[in-house]
Amino acid sequence: MFEAKLENAALLKKIVESIKDLVTDAPFDCSENAMCLQAMDSSHVALVSLKLEVGLFDTYRCDRTINLGISLKNMSNALKCANNDDGCMIKYEENEGDSITFTFTDTKRDKTQDVTVKMMDIDGEHLGIPDQDYAIVCEMPAAEFQKTCKDLAMFSDSLNITATKSGIVFSGKGDSGGINVTYAPNSNADDEKESVSLEVNEPVNVNFSIKYMNSFTKATTLSSRVRISLSNDVPIVIEYPIEEAGYLRFYLAPKIDDEDNME
Amino acid sequence: MFEAKLENAALLKKIVESIKDLVTDAPFDCSENAMCLQAMDSSHVALVSLKLEVGLFDTYRCDRTINLGISLKNMSNALKCANNDDGCMIKYEENEGDSITFTFTDTKRDKTQDVTVKMMDIDGEHLGIPDQDYAIVCEMPAAEFQKTCKDLAMFSDSLNITATKSGIVFSGKGDSGGINVTYAPNSNADDEKESVSLEVNEPVNVNFSIKYMNSFTKATTLSSRVRISLSNDVPIVIEYPIEEAGYLRFYLAPKIDDEDNME
Amino acid sequence: MFEAKLENAALLKKIVESIKDLVTDAPFDCSENAMCLQAMDSSHVALVSLKLEVGLFDTYRCDRTINLGISLKNMSNALKCANNDDGCMIKYEENEGDSITFTFTDTKRDKTQDVTVKMMDIDGEHLGIPDQDYAIVCEMPAAEFQKTCKDLAMFSDSLNITATKSGIVFSGKGDSGGINVTYAPNSNADDEKESVSLEVNEPVNVNFSIKYMNSFTKATTLSSRVRISLSNDVPIVIEYPIEEAGYLRFYLAPKIDDEDNME
Repeated sequence: MFEAKLENAALLKKIVESIKDLVTDAPFDCSENAMCLQAMDSSHVALVSLKLEVGLFDTYRCDRTINLGISLKNMSNALKCANNDDGCMIKYEENEGDSITFTFTDTKRDKTQDVTVKMMDIDGEHLGIPDQDYAIVCEMPAAEFQKTCKDLAMFSDSLNITATKSGIVFSGKGDSGGINVTYAPNSNADDEKESVSLEVNEPVNVNFSIKYMNSFTKATTLSSRVRISLSNDVPIVIEYPIEEAGYLRFYLAPKIDDEDNME
Repeated sequence: MFEAKLENAALLKKIVESIKDLVTDAPFDCSENAMCLQAMDSSHVALVSLKLEVGLFDTYRCDRTINLGISLKNMSNALKCANNDDGCMIKYEENEGDSITFTFTDTKRDKTQDVTVKMMDIDGEHLGIPDQDYAIVCEMPAAEFQKTCKDLAMFSDSLNITATKSGIVFSGKGDSGGINVTYAPNSNADDEKESVSLEVNEPVNVNFSIKYMNSFTKATTLSSRVRISLSNDVPIVIEYPIEEAGYLRFYLAPKIDDEDNME
Repeated sequence: MFEAKLENAALLKKIVESIKDLVTDAPFDCSENAMCLQAMDSSHVALVSLKLEVGLFDTYRCDRTINLGISLKNMSNALKCANNDDGCMIKYEENEGDSITFTFTDTKRDKTQDVTVKMMDIDGEHLGIPDQDYAIVCEMPAAEFQKTCKDLAMFSDSLNITATKSGIVFSGKGDSGGINVTYAPNSNADDEKESVSLEVNEPVNVNFSIKYMNSFTKATTLSSRVRISLSNDVPIVIEYPIEEAGYLRFYLAPKIDDEDNME
């Protein structure tokens, strides 16, 4: 039996809306310590990795490690029924068939919604992602990163990122013109939420598909800050922390072919 | 001559927007006591019944009972010209031809708008709808009922309603899963506007087309509360009261075929 | 070299959004005193005339009179990258090739965006528009004029304007009905911003294409007031003043053919 209760349905709504265009069918790995999800996007270019630790839940019970496969479109529909501040219970009972039940409670109105969603078999291969040191780690307001990716997409299919101690530059170039967006590190900013912090171990200069970046930034609703980790020639990590007890991470390999052209 | 003045155009705007997708051409029956409208939807499944008593108007003059036929699309366009708080005069003069004139006045700006709309001949058959006792009468926040119908439509074409003394349940079931929305009666709720009241004379279990229900709930703008009256095997009544001096009611017959399948 | 800095990008954003559907490619005439633009719409019916005097800029340097041709679509994309309150520098350096650079600065975040937009050759013929006296000059809230044009478009392709000392009437007539919108001059209105002022030298009765009028009113974002100047048989002028140091004007010739029909 698996049973986990979130105080508010809003968190799960935001997570599913963030990834449902990237990942169609999701295998949720539920264990004693956390509810996790790892999945490649449908074109096998980007990797989504979600971790929700027990601490995020009001109650949490997982008798044995199980994998719950679910269509994210159906899960999104189920969650649309919930108001943001409804309580949200997720329940799976082995001997009650092949469905997950989401129960949303609105105590103010004595209202209960039980939504059942059919499960599906998904071949989940849990990839081991090694922890590693990155040449650059940048933390910035998530909304800033989202706006920058959106702006760049007007000019180019590729996002070039260069970083040195003096700042991080996002740029793109197309037929009609080009754009450079430069952030100087301002870790002393008055407003910590607005600050851009930058750790530089060595300079980088690397290119990514802007389309995927724009897709990742749908997770901006989840967190006020985003953490960008990158090195030359390895996948970039775009991480949205979840209340200090989880995260939603996106991994994307650099574009190799364009690199020379962009310099 | 018919001449009636509403303090604000907003009321008429909301009414027309609520029904114009259901009813194309509307026969307004104007008498000494009230302005009424009764019309079947274009597929002759649902019935709309509107009553605006004299008390809703600032001034009201109806020399003899007349029927004013008008295209609701044209009436909607006319009303779009009015600001919500403009005064709204409706005028029909027998010997001035085949038009109704809407005059909107914005005294703050010394602005007057005269909009004339061509009338049309409509065969209005005024059905006598008998007052009757219903097995269940439920009053709830109109916005709650609207959200429940919208949520159910994601799962099913049919809305099943069951009610007993312990509560009223709206449910639907489809290929990807299902949903049950349960309201316990909470007539003692602190906030009277949010309360769900339920009178139960006998239990009911009955199915309706969710598409029509969703269409009716466009009238949610008219009233904070909705009154749902139903019995097994007779049309349901969805009523939106209008300032205690009128109403907009929708009648819909149950789905007979689906009834067995849904239980 | 041309270099001009606006305190906020918002002004230029609004201007470009106001005219970019009317004018595809724009020749900006930059001189010592002002940045100007004059262009016919693509069907050569309406004329757009923009003047931004030096006083609108924080810094302004124009070594010699030059003409900067630019696609308004590309300029719009560039400006979308700016937040409304970002500083906005426009720069053109003769010997640095065929691009204009817009630099947007967000000092709060130590963020700088350099957007380069390719220039284009545009045959700009600067028409001399004679100053002239008009039979009618009407000033009114820009939002009121916008709403009136939008309302009229539901009924007619033509906007008829008649004005006498007692008021100004905008009207249209179509198959389904018609509309007259009358403003009495209320120069003594309590709220000066809401007042309608009307100078009448001689009565007018003239017709215009409503489609163009609706297009002009996109400039409503620029100014709370609009100034309408008209005489029989000459182009109407719709003027949006810009902070008392510039303007955006639209000129449109009357519809000759319809005039008789409308009276």
